[in-house]
Amino acid sequence: MDSAAPDAAVTVDKAVVQGTGGESALSALSAYLEEDMLACNRAIIARMESPVPLIPQLGAHLVAAGGKRLRPLLTLASARLCGYQPGPDHQRHVGLAACVEFIHTATLLHDDVVDESTLRRGLASANAVFGNKASVLVGDFLFARSFQLMTADGSLKVMAILSDASATIAEGEVLQMVVQNDLTTPVERYLEVIHGKTAALFAAACRVGAVVAERPDAEEDALEQFGTNLGMAFQLVDDALDYAADQQVLGKTVGDDMREGKITLPVLAAYEAGSPEERVFWERVIGEGEQTEEDLPHALNLIAKTGAINTTIARAQVYADAAVEALSIFPDSELRRLLIETVQFTVNRAR
Amino acid sequence: MDSAAPDAAVTVDKAVVQGTGGESALSALSAYLEEDMLACNRAIIARMESPVPLIPQLGAHLVAAGGKRLRPLLTLASARLCGYQPGPDHQRHVGLAACVEFIHTATLLHDDVVDESTLRRGLASANAVFGNKASVLVGDFLFARSFQLMTADGSLKVMAILSDASATIAEGEVLQMVVQNDLTTPVERYLEVIHGKTAALFAAACRVGAVVAERPDAEEDALEQFGTNLGMAFQLVDDALDYAADQQVLGKTVGDDMREGKITLPVLAAYEAGSPEERVFWERVIGEGEQTEEDLPHALNLIAKTGAINTTIARAQVYADAAVEALSIFPDSELRRLLIETVQFTVNRAR
Repeated sequence: MDSAAPDAAVTVDKAVVQGTGGESALSALSAYLEEDMLACNRAIIARMESPVPLIPQLGAHLVAAGGKRLRPLLTLASARLCGYQPGPDHQRHVGLAACVEFIHTATLLHDDVVDESTLRRGLASANAVFGNKASVLVGDFLFARSFQLMTADGSLKVMAILSDASATIAEGEVLQMVVQNDLTTPVERYLEVIHGKTAALFAAACRVGAVVAERPDAEEDALEQFGTNLGMAFQLVDDALDYAADQQVLGKTVGDDMREGKITLPVLAAYEAGSPEERVFWERVIGEGEQTEEDLPHALNLIAKTGAINTTIARAQVYADAAVEALSIFPDSELRRLLIETVQFTVNRAR
Repeated sequence: MDSAAPDAAVTVDKAVVQGTGGESALSALSAYLEEDMLACNRAIIARMESPVPLIPQLGAHLVAAGGKRLRPLLTLASARLCGYQPGPDHQRHVGLAACVEFIHTATLLHDDVVDESTLRRGLASANAVFGNKASVLVGDFLFARSFQLMTADGSLKVMAILSDASATIAEGEVLQMVVQNDLTTPVERYLEVIHGKTAALFAAACRVGAVVAERPDAEEDALEQFGTNLGMAFQLVDDALDYAADQQVLGKTVGDDMREGKITLPVLAAYEAGSPEERVFWERVIGEGEQTEEDLPHALNLIAKTGAINTTIARAQVYADAAVEALSIFPDSELRRLLIETVQFTVNRAR
């Protein structure tokens, strides 16, 4: 794991971090990069085309579901933060932002198969509508498409970053499967899982932005650190929300992770802090995967009682602070402020 | 579809084609390229490594299953046919042969999930042993690994060939799923499916061999044509064997395709040539997917009675002839003769 030391001193303006931000931070960042984001959406739709009509059909389903487009936003923002100046015939940041979203969407499609989840982003998941078969194969198509987009970009450096990230994502997903139902999983191992499945792509999305701007290694490294730490914070909060948020807010069913026996920090923390009887409960529902209808409310109670959400959010805040700190080598600007607010928003959505 | 005109005149020595060849052709080619194949196997094992132990474990299962390694063999043979001279520090053909095998293995793993087949290469399929989850995720890992191998090779030309092939494979697999159970599928559409799911990777495997040897476009084109046509012949014969071979020979269960409602030429030919009652039978078992135990022997009878296997093999022979013809621009050599025998072996295994 190459995520930054989470206890790095935060030197940027804390007032900004604690400031306005809130719900609107992501939309403010999107709005600031509106032209780039529109170009990226057009690229996504154009590159979803195929002579096999089911592919754009399923693609349209995913595009309609929308999502936050957080990862492509990070590529676009990183390129702009590094001063990348696109021209009419060179829009490398847009192609790579689309590429990053394709990799992400491919993993979502395969995750739907794997997790048998029926809700994704608040709509019926692709595999519930189109079947497992289509999810696996269209995921493969999007993955291949992402490599065509990298090839079209033509930079070996970019290709190394994104193909390495793709392998790390798959390793993270396999590791997550291996530790499933295993309550003896050390927290460090859980952190490896979320680094692989989430933070690696956040990091790569940011780093390639710096690469297209042809900036010094220090800026590439800083943006990679920013992405890694933001990704870690993001996934920790996501895992907290699975035991806290209501379905409207989260766009997925509360308790999904529990139903799947997924090992996440809220569960590890509640198990660690639990009484012997509580541990027996967790061993049954997570360890053995034997669950009844009443188990979810009881689990939510135990999670609340043991402060497991706070434990998780506190750890997310440490990563968030490190993400903000990583941006300190860049001069103050509106874009940097928006990125800092986005970090804080990521943590605040669970508060 | 860019497969060659199958009626191209065959100008190479027909005696060679009809000659010895037989069962031993593939092993003879393997033996001729033994050093390269050993290096390729070592590369495959080395690049299967991961800090997540399940990945090399599942990899070992696939390596143990062996398979013919036909696709990497094509890359190695193509490079050598074009006079590629590797050195101790440049073994591009080996890395790319491993890359091609990883792409193929990834699609096999995902195919196992999709098709719910329980036998693959005569051993229990990976998903029967490790579960669907592992098959999807390890397939993703191998796919990502293949792109790392391409990136390490460092040629944008190679990357374009292999990433295009990967997208075409996925399109072919999606198209196969779309036409499943549809007996009105035109033969042309079936040919598109097998071009995508099989011939595209054969073609790419051959073409990258020529690219590493830095040969003129005419030789790249010739080897691509060779690969495309060999791939078409190979898949047609595979589809014939599914209604003809015994399980020992084929290493998969006869009737798998029928059970899955897969649209293949033997079925389309038997349906086309069938009586009204026979068509009702096919509409039930393939169209509706309603099958009983007695349906497979009846189907095999109908396939035999209507000459559907011969129809399929005859078409495979046309592609095989075009594959051999494509090699005519290369001077006679032992390697060329072995490749020609491999083509003929591909068709003969169904006779």
